[in-house]
Amino acid sequence: MTTGRVSLVGAGPGDPGLWTVRALERIEEADLVLYDALVDVDALRRATKAQCFSVGKRARRDSVRQETIHKLMIRAARQGKHVGRLKGGDPFVFGRGAEEALALVRAGIPYEVVPGVTTAVAAAELAGIPVTHRGISSAFLVLAGHTSDAVDSPLRSVQPNTVSVVFMMAISARIELAAKLIAHGWAPDTPSAIVCAASTPDAWTWTGTLADMGTATPPPGLAGVLVIGDVVRVRQALVAGDSEPGALDEVRSYGRNR
Amino acid sequence: MTTGRVSLVGAGPGDPGLWTVRALERIEEADLVLYDALVDVDALRRATKAQCFSVGKRARRDSVRQETIHKLMIRAARQGKHVGRLKGGDPFVFGRGAEEALALVRAGIPYEVVPGVTTAVAAAELAGIPVTHRGISSAFLVLAGHTSDAVDSPLRSVQPNTVSVVFMMAISARIELAAKLIAHGWAPDTPSAIVCAASTPDAWTWTGTLADMGTATPPPGLAGVLVIGDVVRVRQALVAGDSEPGALDEVRSYGRNR
Repeated sequence: MTTGRVSLVGAGPGDPGLWTVRALERIEEADLVLYDALVDVDALRRATKAQCFSVGKRARRDSVRQETIHKLMIRAARQGKHVGRLKGGDPFVFGRGAEEALALVRAGIPYEVVPGVTTAVAAAELAGIPVTHRGISSAFLVLAGHTSDAVDSPLRSVQPNTVSVVFMMAISARIELAAKLIAHGWAPDTPSAIVCAASTPDAWTWTGTLADMGTATPPPGLAGVLVIGDVVRVRQALVAGDSEPGALDEVRSYGRNR
Repeated sequence: MTTGRVSLVGAGPGDPGLWTVRALERIEEADLVLYDALVDVDALRRATKAQCFSVGKRARRDSVRQETIHKLMIRAARQGKHVGRLKGGDPFVFGRGAEEALALVRAGIPYEVVPGVTTAVAAAELAGIPVTHRGISSAFLVLAGHTSDAVDSPLRSVQPNTVSVVFMMAISARIELAAKLIAHGWAPDTPSAIVCAASTPDAWTWTGTLADMGTATPPPGLAGVLVIGDVVRVRQALVAGDSEPGALDEVRSYGRNR
């Protein structure tokens, strides 16, 4: 019996134009596609050969258990199939990609990883916020914000207001996260952004400060990230709509003074 | 006179298969391509319409000054050209992409940003190292390591051995960087990796500890990243060639115990 193989593929932040060339190739080649909730379903039309199944969380349905996903991949590969395992963003950034790879190694199934455009960087970027910017921030920290409890340990480890911070999966806990940053010593007026559904037609961005995070009203049901730090000021200068007179010079001199 | 436009495009870690679909489209459409040193030159064959110029550092030639790049882009756009500005990795991760975008905004030139696969994540990933892994690391910090002096401030801001760290552009300063981490309180036996030329035929990976970073002998002339933290252990389990009996269980129980 032929052994198949598994491609663990990053699908980027949402826009099918931000898929990699290899991601498209793999989806066209695959016999079975297992995709997560944040993958654009239209893009799956390229999977002409494959049966496609969602294993991600959807309205009124829990996500398939991680162990079940492992079993589905391993069973299909043992039947000789090429499995395309599609994940939003990058498979190794809070994507459990390495857990799936370890399960495949344990089962003796050949696999590859196809990196994707990570939402951690791209969501900020598409909102006009560079996670690094000369004179403003020379480092960025990425962490999961799906529960505010889980961030205590990483937040304790970082001095307030020293690096850019990106919280992923952070929309529902945004108010608790902002309060927690302030409790950890971050300045209440730290520039902050909420970016939902980046790169998609539903894209929505809010900017303000940690202290007024509670006033933001993101549209319900969208996934997104929080971006915290002075780099958020760059958006003021870049996005014409938000630009106020002098905003641009303000960012420039701010950069020079640090 | 028609005003042209500029696409600031991420070209990923090197392999043309990791270009995004939109990056390829933009290069095919562009009238002028300005590319950085780390962009794969073969991929530029897709730029059938465009004149292509390297503005990155090459052997025996310094890189073009940042202000000169701004002027080249603005002049070409004012001549009605579509400029493809190609950067290795992602344009907004230590890529000066936002500086170029600010220059374009100041000059009134329409521009867009096309995110790319960032080398910060992909280099580690392609070496079998997830920057996050359940039970091992729930946060990662990315910083530039081209000079060891520049990292003092971000390193002071992070508690030792609490998050995964990726140093970009870090090969030449690797020994000083490892010494600096130890001086900042990181355990000398912290698992560490050097990943050069990830995703290219020259890809080269070393793993060891901070203390023995000096024993690594990366091939000369390759760009690369350092990855520091317990996530490096995942590679032992994933990469068959490096796997020792029990390595896999070791990683699993390590994860459970945290």
